[in-house]
Amino acid sequence: MDLPSNKLQQAVDQLASLPGVGKRSALRYALHLMRQDEARFADFVSAVSALKTDVHLCRRCHCVSDEELCPICRSPKRQHGVICVVENIQDVLAIENTQQYRGVYHVLGGVISPIDGIGIRDINIASLLSRIQQADPEPVQEVILALPTTMEGDTTAFYINKQLEPLGVKVSAIARGISVGDSLEYADEITLARSIMHRVPFSSQ
Amino acid sequence: MDLPSNKLQQAVDQLASLPGVGKRSALRYALHLMRQDEARFADFVSAVSALKTDVHLCRRCHCVSDEELCPICRSPKRQHGVICVVENIQDVLAIENTQQYRGVYHVLGGVISPIDGIGIRDINIASLLSRIQQADPEPVQEVILALPTTMEGDTTAFYINKQLEPLGVKVSAIARGISVGDSLEYADEITLARSIMHRVPFSSQ
Repeated sequence: MDLPSNKLQQAVDQLASLPGVGKRSALRYALHLMRQDEARFADFVSAVSALKTDVHLCRRCHCVSDEELCPICRSPKRQHGVICVVENIQDVLAIENTQQYRGVYHVLGGVISPIDGIGIRDINIASLLSRIQQADPEPVQEVILALPTTMEGDTTAFYINKQLEPLGVKVSAIARGISVGDSLEYADEITLARSIMHRVPFSSQ
Repeated sequence: MDLPSNKLQQAVDQLASLPGVGKRSALRYALHLMRQDEARFADFVSAVSALKTDVHLCRRCHCVSDEELCPICRSPKRQHGVICVVENIQDVLAIENTQQYRGVYHVLGGVISPIDGIGIRDINIASLLSRIQQADPEPVQEVILALPTTMEGDTTAFYINKQLEPLGVKVSAIARGISVGDSLEYADEITLARSIMHRVPFSSQ
């Protein structure tokens, strides 16, 4: 597809660099933006520009934040002694949406993946350990690992657990099992086996 | 989904205003952009900003262009006496991709649709008529209507044909029929009926 405008082509190429966006969608986005009036277009550009200048990562948990500490790390209502370790910011949002978790988070920003060149130092493990060692803002009683059940996620969880052992902090992992509403018939064997192995008292479910 | 950063939320809202983009995809785009280095991020923002400042519509055919006239309207190799009338810029690109058409285009920028409040004056019909009346840059022999086969597209085609009648220019419409490779069995009746009605000599197909 050769566009009759180089400037449009450049914008389409840039929009097509967004994850999961093809050239055809990128062209739709570009033509849509061109059709906006000056004010709306300026709003779009300034909001996107602000991503690099005004959005920061929380100094403590590495989640997104407008200030040095994110609203969760600042909140006096959260249990700062319980840290849920997740791969990325979307995972924080997913857990927050349940409205069931009252602790805080630690966003690794990835999982250990030698094949992608992501090592221990490329993700936020050191800052997790120092958070626990410095007991800032309060001593940590529990670390909940909520990492993906992939080879990389398991490796990362295993490594973090090993690092936390000498610190005497309780380490747990989120429960895996059959999703609520799913039938046993179609569940994979590993999930079904885990949900039987980690069965819970009927009264506490 | 309440983001812990208002600035990120604003960018996500803006990205989610792109056609077919939901909040979840918009968040992925925003986080992807945040992860880019300064230079790549600046390239993205400047390419998108240029959409409003540097990309213009061709004075003659209303297709996108960096200059006053688009490359197709400027080209001495094209037949300027044959004008293909299309709904939008994507249609120009689709026809150009066939590499079979040597005439020029006229982009209406929409079709007549009273339900969406799009009337005769909201699309580029007047400029099509004046192009033909002024014979600029040469007398027009044929207008090919390549509009969608919807109620709106048919209405628009019917109206344009009526306007062109007194100008003594040949008006044709692109052929509708069974797609190459499709079986008759699954074709809809209207398409199949048209493809029989408008059958072509075997030797010319």
